[in-house]
Amino acid sequence: MSADTLPADEALAWLALLRAPGLGAGAIRTLVARHGSARAAVARARREPSIPSAARDAVCSPDRETQAADRRWLDQPGHHLIPFAGDEFPALLRDIPSPPAALFIAGDPTHLWSPQVAIVGSRNATAGGLANARAFARAFAQSGNVVTSGLAEGIDGAAHAAALDAGGTTIAVLGTGTDVVYPRQHGELAARIRAAGALVSEFPPGTAGKPEHFPRRNRIIAGLSLGTLVIEAGLNSGSLITARLAAEQGREVFALPGSIHSPLARGCHKLIRDGAMLVETADEVLDQLRGIGARLADHLRGRLGGQPAIAGHEGPAPATAKRDPEYARLLTALDHAPVSLDELADRSRLPIAALSSMLLVLELEGVVAAASGGRYVLARPGENPGSPASPGHGGA
Amino acid sequence: MSADTLPADEALAWLALLRAPGLGAGAIRTLVARHGSARAAVARARREPSIPSAARDAVCSPDRETQAADRRWLDQPGHHLIPFAGDEFPALLRDIPSPPAALFIAGDPTHLWSPQVAIVGSRNATAGGLANARAFARAFAQSGNVVTSGLAEGIDGAAHAAALDAGGTTIAVLGTGTDVVYPRQHGELAARIRAAGALVSEFPPGTAGKPEHFPRRNRIIAGLSLGTLVIEAGLNSGSLITARLAAEQGREVFALPGSIHSPLARGCHKLIRDGAMLVETADEVLDQLRGIGARLADHLRGRLGGQPAIAGHEGPAPATAKRDPEYARLLTALDHAPVSLDELADRSRLPIAALSSMLLVLELEGVVAAASGGRYVLARPGENPGSPASPGHGGA
Repeated sequence: MSADTLPADEALAWLALLRAPGLGAGAIRTLVARHGSARAAVARARREPSIPSAARDAVCSPDRETQAADRRWLDQPGHHLIPFAGDEFPALLRDIPSPPAALFIAGDPTHLWSPQVAIVGSRNATAGGLANARAFARAFAQSGNVVTSGLAEGIDGAAHAAALDAGGTTIAVLGTGTDVVYPRQHGELAARIRAAGALVSEFPPGTAGKPEHFPRRNRIIAGLSLGTLVIEAGLNSGSLITARLAAEQGREVFALPGSIHSPLARGCHKLIRDGAMLVETADEVLDQLRGIGARLADHLRGRLGGQPAIAGHEGPAPATAKRDPEYARLLTALDHAPVSLDELADRSRLPIAALSSMLLVLELEGVVAAASGGRYVLARPGENPGSPASPGHGGA
Repeated sequence: MSADTLPADEALAWLALLRAPGLGAGAIRTLVARHGSARAAVARARREPSIPSAARDAVCSPDRETQAADRRWLDQPGHHLIPFAGDEFPALLRDIPSPPAALFIAGDPTHLWSPQVAIVGSRNATAGGLANARAFARAFAQSGNVVTSGLAEGIDGAAHAAALDAGGTTIAVLGTGTDVVYPRQHGELAARIRAAGALVSEFPPGTAGKPEHFPRRNRIIAGLSLGTLVIEAGLNSGSLITARLAAEQGREVFALPGSIHSPLARGCHKLIRDGAMLVETADEVLDQLRGIGARLADHLRGRLGGQPAIAGHEGPAPATAKRDPEYARLLTALDHAPVSLDELADRSRLPIAALSSMLLVLELEGVVAAASGGRYVLARPGENPGSPASPGHGGA
């Protein structure tokens, strides 16, 4: 991981809190914020009245075997625990109504800062639906977007695989621990995602899949992504939950129409009637996401302490770099050849944690593109980085 | 025809005006209104400065052969000329931005007062599209609605035929004279429609089809109907014109979605993106039309001199009969067995021309249903005719 990694004892304290029965994400976020660190929260758990007694016992007397397993998980290369309050936590996911207290990552966590499009749909997709999932995933990947989905059978798996096959990046959000692959037949796919993207979960290592995990998983898929595309979905599909959460989070929802006689088109048609954008091509999705990217960049920039967004301003965000000296320093550090995050930190003298969010803002504005190996590049040779009319928001 | 028929010399005067080159529908409506009748307008045409000279010559010195042919057309049973200002002119069509100056009818003109749903679509429809057209037409006909379309190949023809096969009624609006069947292979279908419904045109007998006639024909299809359903349509289809006109006329537009890979779904998808209602079943259309029917009834009642609609009133219209003594007289004249228009006129002592519009209001409110042979019946045995919650707006 290019960004700072959590010290081992702080990570283990986080795991103790995350594994405590009956302690929700909101309670954990509050506890850690109040005490300044997970370690401090654990150390004072005995005298903390807000923790239910069962959780308090678990936090104060953790199971030795579980703790040893957690330590082994944390020690493996490519494994990361990213707490909500850390700068490495994905900025878009932080913005949702009930964000996770922390994320477990197996793979490269820098992909979580890249612009993502979710592709979700039925586990029992038709051949046509699978072909559509592959075609849209390929187009998103080729335009420099990360394809995010849920590793399920059917549409999810087809989207992940097609993004990888196109040389792109994909993120799988799991309803299990990152070390528990579900469904089992996606073991090889999960290994490929881990190697070229990231497996993400809010559930600690070893957690088995439970039905109630999947709606929670879905809010993370939607929350990481600029928009969610539903390819095929029945009326009771979990994909409709993901789409509803995306809409509630202010992200765009896209749906593919289909025959009125296809049960797997019903869910998409319901979404369209409820306001989702009917799309026929990947370009329509990408065009729409450019507008969302500009709005989100504007919002993020305000939240990150840059000049606040102009009230009522709906058009493309004025170029950040022209107004903010830190962004100007970052842009000077960037190049038309890919530069690593560490090199950017050296050149700009900005902390790596701040860089991650700033780079997302610039990616959303279409000024910067993610390159392979967690590196960044100015979006187009010869392009004026200050131009608000930059047409893309990413590039492989 | 149950309603008063135009006197022969007035009908011939109308034909002289309608055949005059360069005299548009708006000009003719104005002329006739100013002079009180078509006869008076023709008699004073020589001194009428608003008539272009070529039109004036044609009106004052009509072609003898054409006039003889017009006389023969008018003399045939089932042939009617309905001027815009007449009470027989369909109330919904009168409401559009540029209504025709008159309609030529071959068939039973009372069907034009019944609630209609337009079904339109591609001439080169797929087998699936044709099957959908048939299924929706059958459902509309069976629920007591007249199916209105344009007699074209493909979707139009399938909709007309299915409505007739279901024992229902259908109206074909033509871009030619009612005696010129286009396309030629629809000769038999046109004869069936004439026998069990109506062929309608604003073009005088003998008029051949010209490309510019068909968009004009489409505005009449949309204008006669509570809503327009587009089954299959390419991006350049004339059906999109019909749909746009329907929307501009304040009517509902419905579209069937389809595969993103089907060129004939593109037009429907464009309509849905532009605000048309995506529908999967005929019931969805019928549910929606009930609301439109109530609004239109409210509007018509106001325009017909009944108690005006309450400003801002959006719900189902309060029952007309409770508020208006003429409607109360009409309801007393109605029965749970079908009653002819002449009998209703006798019983209620209301003029037939006024009855037609009042019956449409009551049909739209779901109180009255059209029965076979141009007769009318209270919508349901035992139903309280004053109930605003009447569920249907028609019944065969």
